[in-house]
Amino acid sequence: MKGLEDITSRDVDFAKWYTDVVTKANLVDYSNVKGSMIICPYGYAIWESMQNILDKMFKETGHENVQMPMFIPESLLNVEKNHIEGFAPEVAWVTHGGKDKLEERMCVRPTSEVLFCDYYKKIIKSYRDLPKLYNQWCTIVRWEKTTRPFLRSREILWQEGHTMHATKEEAIEETLRMLHVYEDFQRNYLAIPVIIGKKTEKEKFAGAEASYSLEAMMYDGVALQNGTSHYFGDGFAKTFGIEFLNKENKLVTPFQTSWGVTTRMIGSLIMVHGDDRGLVIPPNIAPTKVMIIPIGDKEEITAITNKISEDLKNNNISFKVDNSNKTPGFKFADAEVKGYPVRIEIGMRDLENKEVTIVRRDTLEKIKVKTDNVIEALNKLFPEIQDNMYKKALKRRDEMIYDAKSYEEFTEIAKNKPGFIKTNWCGDTSCEDKIKDDFSMKSRCLIEDEEISGPCVCCGKEAKYRLYFGRQY
Amino acid sequence: MKGLEDITSRDVDFAKWYTDVVTKANLVDYSNVKGSMIICPYGYAIWESMQNILDKMFKETGHENVQMPMFIPESLLNVEKNHIEGFAPEVAWVTHGGKDKLEERMCVRPTSEVLFCDYYKKIIKSYRDLPKLYNQWCTIVRWEKTTRPFLRSREILWQEGHTMHATKEEAIEETLRMLHVYEDFQRNYLAIPVIIGKKTEKEKFAGAEASYSLEAMMYDGVALQNGTSHYFGDGFAKTFGIEFLNKENKLVTPFQTSWGVTTRMIGSLIMVHGDDRGLVIPPNIAPTKVMIIPIGDKEEITAITNKISEDLKNNNISFKVDNSNKTPGFKFADAEVKGYPVRIEIGMRDLENKEVTIVRRDTLEKIKVKTDNVIEALNKLFPEIQDNMYKKALKRRDEMIYDAKSYEEFTEIAKNKPGFIKTNWCGDTSCEDKIKDDFSMKSRCLIEDEEISGPCVCCGKEAKYRLYFGRQY
Repeated sequence: MKGLEDITSRDVDFAKWYTDVVTKANLVDYSNVKGSMIICPYGYAIWESMQNILDKMFKETGHENVQMPMFIPESLLNVEKNHIEGFAPEVAWVTHGGKDKLEERMCVRPTSEVLFCDYYKKIIKSYRDLPKLYNQWCTIVRWEKTTRPFLRSREILWQEGHTMHATKEEAIEETLRMLHVYEDFQRNYLAIPVIIGKKTEKEKFAGAEASYSLEAMMYDGVALQNGTSHYFGDGFAKTFGIEFLNKENKLVTPFQTSWGVTTRMIGSLIMVHGDDRGLVIPPNIAPTKVMIIPIGDKEEITAITNKISEDLKNNNISFKVDNSNKTPGFKFADAEVKGYPVRIEIGMRDLENKEVTIVRRDTLEKIKVKTDNVIEALNKLFPEIQDNMYKKALKRRDEMIYDAKSYEEFTEIAKNKPGFIKTNWCGDTSCEDKIKDDFSMKSRCLIEDEEISGPCVCCGKEAKYRLYFGRQY
Repeated sequence: MKGLEDITSRDVDFAKWYTDVVTKANLVDYSNVKGSMIICPYGYAIWESMQNILDKMFKETGHENVQMPMFIPESLLNVEKNHIEGFAPEVAWVTHGGKDKLEERMCVRPTSEVLFCDYYKKIIKSYRDLPKLYNQWCTIVRWEKTTRPFLRSREILWQEGHTMHATKEEAIEETLRMLHVYEDFQRNYLAIPVIIGKKTEKEKFAGAEASYSLEAMMYDGVALQNGTSHYFGDGFAKTFGIEFLNKENKLVTPFQTSWGVTTRMIGSLIMVHGDDRGLVIPPNIAPTKVMIIPIGDKEEITAITNKISEDLKNNNISFKVDNSNKTPGFKFADAEVKGYPVRIEIGMRDLENKEVTIVRRDTLEKIKVKTDNVIEALNKLFPEIQDNMYKKALKRRDEMIYDAKSYEEFTEIAKNKPGFIKTNWCGDTSCEDKIKDDFSMKSRCLIEDEEISGPCVCCGKEAKYRLYFGRQY
């Protein structure tokens, strides 16, 4: 790894900055398999960290993990019309097994609603079988033409929850519960503020009755959809003929949800917190919280390095020691590009005062700490860093949210200011389409908690909703 | 769930017993996707338990997780001749993305040697880049014609380690290190005794220089290969043109290994320990160590159930409470079919003596324990159960290993006694083939630590090896 200084400034060329950071921090690498990326150890460790926390949250809310088939026979994908229309253009088709042509071709799952429905039809017979709260961690495939690391890829690592409920109310409650689990996770672990809300008819998931999303704003003002939670009503269930005997011994149809997040969240983590020196990873999600950098190999330095390592281990604080034969300057830069929440520099000058230097990645502040007080200092620092990162991201995002009352105002903002635009909207897809055509901005989600005052920003008719618009990744 | 009593006796029809247990314990279910199974929550929880422990062992031995593409372009699969011959007949081919025919078809990975080699060629340039110790958890696909839950399936959940080393010695050391990590895991967590050894030329992995396997014996005397570790020499690396500058600044080729275990281990767990009442899961791998069964819903019973639940939680002992409205008899049978290491029955009669009843799944022994001593009793019981299960499995296995000095003796044993047969062997594949043709027995692995006395069991020529034979799943 050479040329850590070669990261393009994020204010000069954000797209180039992103690619530089992703590769210089060794999160991903390009493969010779067109459209697929390689997730390198550090990138995968971040994903594992996300998985561990989310999986615990899913289990605490009563969900169980399963593993469904990865192939969907064409006839099964065809059962739900809206769904197949949404996904058919982008699935990978398996046509041969060894030398034999398959009687029926199968696609690699682009999502698993139909597989879960097909299974639920078999196992849901009585109200006693409900709710079914299943989740799976897996890889899905969507045959994208253009790809970008973590943002758009043919292979996507994700989790997909698929649940069935006896009543509409329970299913809606579940849809919102998981939306809030995601919000909680992104706020408290990723330090990312998200706007949550309902998608418009145009933007909702193929086959869903209502879709909710988590919209994060990147440093450049562009939106990244950080997760979705869908309420299906009984649409899929009716199509698949899923029925159960309720408490009154009547055959009725259950209500369904699905919800998912992907490795896109890593892209979000990079683009919300990263700076011109590289990644900045919040302590609560960092797979390695501390990088220890011994300066030189004198006996005292090795002794203190070992002592602090031991202390960190005993306190369950994840850490690594950079014992490579690079220069200290290189090691500092490397720790910065990787975005470890803090690094600890152990050098002779500090040791004369029985001190080491802790460097915060978020502020680059240097803090001298007595060698005996390292753990205490870190335990105080981590929540501070986490909090600071969230507040900084929140401030920047809020400064980039605008309100447009008229189409002129919308045009002015859309052309000059990156960020999200709040509007009044009549509810017609044609107005959404016009804004998309004029400014390449899609609706993000409805705003539930604001009063509507004024007409639709586009057509001037009566407004029925408040709506966010924004460009997106 | 009805008819727990309907499990076929394992001594009457072992194959039927296996299917009964797998489905009645809700480990898997059959899907409408031909060749693929659904792993249900309890089955998946067992796999997660295995993953957690193994992943920790891999990381402790210096390995890092990555995620490679799941597709292999045909030209890349074709690079290594032996490898393609081994796998081409059983891969799934993707030929279309959406409506477009691909310029080059791709298979879903049946294993990832070629993907790792292609990547290692890119990133290994200097001795400083070595060793590379990568592992990945993923799903692979092999287009099998006939399938059986956990034993033979088109989709296989597994991990595959792929490592590169500067020297032959280091690579061989790694091959054996991981073989022993697997052995340790299977012995100490799965309570399964395994025979480890080198495969013959005929049975080794397509493209490997040497393959080692872990051979477990099922209750019916049939072998299940519980994992493999391969040494590739520099064969693949040469074919792929992987070279690095060594310390002497010379361009040389690195040496390679790969190693893997799959959900087959769940099949092994079932067939080594299970009995006519269902599964028996060793405590060290059980996702749920204790099932609490309150008998009735009197206040005292609920109070003690809550107290014991709290104690278990505080002591990090995994447990569940069966609060369903089934009869106690049904709940006991259900706990037995699921194979929880112990169940705790909480009933009024016991409570009069301030006691509860702990029932060991391995021996079905009932133990009265004071309500205050439950944790103490369990902490003593779990290692006892673990140890007892291992010893029982070891004893049975050893009783079913025979030694055959002549072909007559071999024939006699092969026809009448299930199990493994030790032989002297000349080293010729033709002798291996003859035994396979005559008795449907394949060689399992070479025996390293026994003296060769006598001629080849098959041809009568001088023997060079000691070798295990056995029928296999």
